[in-house]
Amino acid sequence: MSATARITGTTRLYAIIGDPIAQVRSPEVFTERLAKAGVDAVLLPVHVPAAQFEVAVPGLLSLGNLDGVLVTVPFKARMVPFAARLGEGARVIGAINALRREADGSWTGDMFDGKGFVNAAMAKGARLQGASVLLFGAGGAGSAIACALAEAGTSAIDVIDPERDRRDSLIAKLSAAFAHCRFAAADAHRSAYDLVINASPVGMGATDGMPGEIGRLAPGTLVGDVVVSQEPTRLIRHALASGCVCVTGRDMHAGQVDAIMAFFGHGSPPFPSAGASTRSH
Amino acid sequence: MSATARITGTTRLYAIIGDPIAQVRSPEVFTERLAKAGVDAVLLPVHVPAAQFEVAVPGLLSLGNLDGVLVTVPFKARMVPFAARLGEGARVIGAINALRREADGSWTGDMFDGKGFVNAAMAKGARLQGASVLLFGAGGAGSAIACALAEAGTSAIDVIDPERDRRDSLIAKLSAAFAHCRFAAADAHRSAYDLVINASPVGMGATDGMPGEIGRLAPGTLVGDVVVSQEPTRLIRHALASGCVCVTGRDMHAGQVDAIMAFFGHGSPPFPSAGASTRSH
Repeated sequence: MSATARITGTTRLYAIIGDPIAQVRSPEVFTERLAKAGVDAVLLPVHVPAAQFEVAVPGLLSLGNLDGVLVTVPFKARMVPFAARLGEGARVIGAINALRREADGSWTGDMFDGKGFVNAAMAKGARLQGASVLLFGAGGAGSAIACALAEAGTSAIDVIDPERDRRDSLIAKLSAAFAHCRFAAADAHRSAYDLVINASPVGMGATDGMPGEIGRLAPGTLVGDVVVSQEPTRLIRHALASGCVCVTGRDMHAGQVDAIMAFFGHGSPPFPSAGASTRSH
Repeated sequence: MSATARITGTTRLYAIIGDPIAQVRSPEVFTERLAKAGVDAVLLPVHVPAAQFEVAVPGLLSLGNLDGVLVTVPFKARMVPFAARLGEGARVIGAINALRREADGSWTGDMFDGKGFVNAAMAKGARLQGASVLLFGAGGAGSAIACALAEAGTSAIDVIDPERDRRDSLIAKLSAAFAHCRFAAADAHRSAYDLVINASPVGMGATDGMPGEIGRLAPGTLVGDVVVSQEPTRLIRHALASGCVCVTGRDMHAGQVDAIMAFFGHGSPPFPSAGASTRSH
């Protein structure tokens, strides 16, 4: 992708912060989107060394022409205290990946990692209202996806994670927040689900297998995999061979961009249900 | 000027800080120069509200991919303590307009406002070694120009400024630093000089007159004016009518760019004598 921008004294700034930072794709993606939207702004890679976080972040947020921040590893939880208001999902899971400056200078934070999956799934025709979900992985990505799916109206989410503490902690947090959805621990893919999603790192290695035992997939199942890889993961290959609709890690990232552009005030959210509702905390 | 840049995760950052910031031209000029030099870097306008200076600057300097900073009004003196090493001229006048990050992470500062004038004058063939100078204005620009001229080997600089305290303070500082050059207070243009320079704001207004009483100018005189204006200032018009070589505010700015690019490690200084010599402080 070729993202070029004209930078002048009036150009407004957006930043993505992380440690390391060289691997991020957001500067290309968002700088191009901002230019297409006619906004005189760029999104910059900003390397915040983890040991400098408490000095760097207040400094950045004090700048008069910085309008928004994206947050990547390892700062998604650590940034929460800098937001005066949080979106519902961000509040439930205690992590954010975007902040915007409000007219009064304060910052609103929200988490779009899960909304990216929901947007990508809806763009592929998934019906999430009342759906049943099997989710591998209760880490950062899995938490965000489970939360966004519950916000989108799923009725049941079974969670598989060998780290039982974080699995059970996620189930407890989500159960307290979403009364309409049943959350439960699971060990394997034993029954039929409307969605089967890998949010674990399994598949990042070229020789990785499946995230767990996966039985026969009915063609109506939507299969998602957060892993971003050159070749399709084994899970995605299995799903394609079974005739399933698939949402890949790249689809998820693409699904976030519209939602974050809308959050930054430069467009409409892709689906009304994926819009950010915010609440003071 | 059209300055476009491709911004990716690996792009290195330079910033110009000031309050206000929208009027600065450096983002266009340096971003284009960096691209032409094949450097994957951009120079950004960074608005540091003066009240946030002590929070914003440590935050900026802690970023892992920020390699250099330009400094404009009102921070040129206030930035000095953030430099671990200062160029000779910066040390004498107590102000900097550029910092670069060294390999060990510390920052070196220097002042290029005067070097810009010296470079522009030398590019127009001025012989500064042993030259006599009449300078209107002992503020920030005048101080930097007087210092850079003394470093370049002038033998006498007469300073005119209605604010006698800052005039005399500048003369004292320069006299202590440069034994080879005679500095003196003056009231008017009474004798012949090799260079006559306006470093006062007179000329910024369209109806402004001369910065002071200026007599006949010999054609060999080099006349400089720091004022950046659409139309030539009255001083420049008088000098051109007298057949003098002129250095305008735009020439001075252009004269800085090569020197700062070299200071940032992306090119050779335009003249050896204008290179930055640095010293710990």
